[in-house]
Amino acid sequence: MTASEARRRFAAAPVARLATADGAGRPHLVPIVFAVAGDTVLSAVDDKPKRTTQLRRLRNVAENPAVALLVDHYEEDWSALWWVRADGTARVLVPGGDDAVAAVALLSERYAAYARRPPRGPVLAVAVSRWSGWRAAE
Amino acid sequence: MTASEARRRFAAAPVARLATADGAGRPHLVPIVFAVAGDTVLSAVDDKPKRTTQLRRLRNVAENPAVALLVDHYEEDWSALWWVRADGTARVLVPGGDDAVAAVALLSERYAAYARRPPRGPVLAVAVSRWSGWRAAE
Repeated sequence: MTASEARRRFAAAPVARLATADGAGRPHLVPIVFAVAGDTVLSAVDDKPKRTTQLRRLRNVAENPAVALLVDHYEEDWSALWWVRADGTARVLVPGGDDAVAAVALLSERYAAYARRPPRGPVLAVAVSRWSGWRAAE
Repeated sequence: MTASEARRRFAAAPVARLATADGAGRPHLVPIVFAVAGDTVLSAVDDKPKRTTQLRRLRNVAENPAVALLVDHYEEDWSALWWVRADGTARVLVPGGDDAVAAVALLSERYAAYARRPPRGPVLAVAVSRWSGWRAAE
């Protein structure tokens, strides 16, 4: 699968999984909702600031910015399987800064639940260095 | 969510995502089909032996056995969201050994595609040290 096809499939999905790792290399995994802007994947933490400072994905990114994101499609008919992955580097956007505000606007356009109640926590931006993917029918 | 509820939901899902990290802590992410036996998650590589020795999930596990596995459920109605995670340590079972043969039998019971054509590659066993999860309605 080409990088542009992988990016297109990724951007169209409603949910992805974010893998981070701490400074010792121990992986962590959570599902995220997101928006894609160019080669950046944006997601937000929808929680109170006090709790989010303890969130493992944010602690991990501070220790180790390398991350991977995955979107996959499963069916019982394995000839219909596909997945796409985005490998990159994550950072937390400056709270209240232009980039964070623009990211929340994008997320709120994409998800009705965010439109009703925008996320209040930190915004994570992943600069994707590689879009890759696989599909069974190839 | 209790550990036993997280384990139950995990075991019932058809697909999970496996996060590994290399020796430098760079995460890697792939979808897997799997079977749960007690507190072990079993998956197999369905590929030619030559190619699988180059597979990044296997290289990573050799360098760093810490892994995380995720099953998640998405709906537009966010009150129905849930996810479960298994954190643990992975190892490759001895090819052709009793454990590997039993794992392939379990996988073939669970997936029709494996029943027709059992996986030929290495079997990965993750000893789960922690089952955890979250659901929106909690």
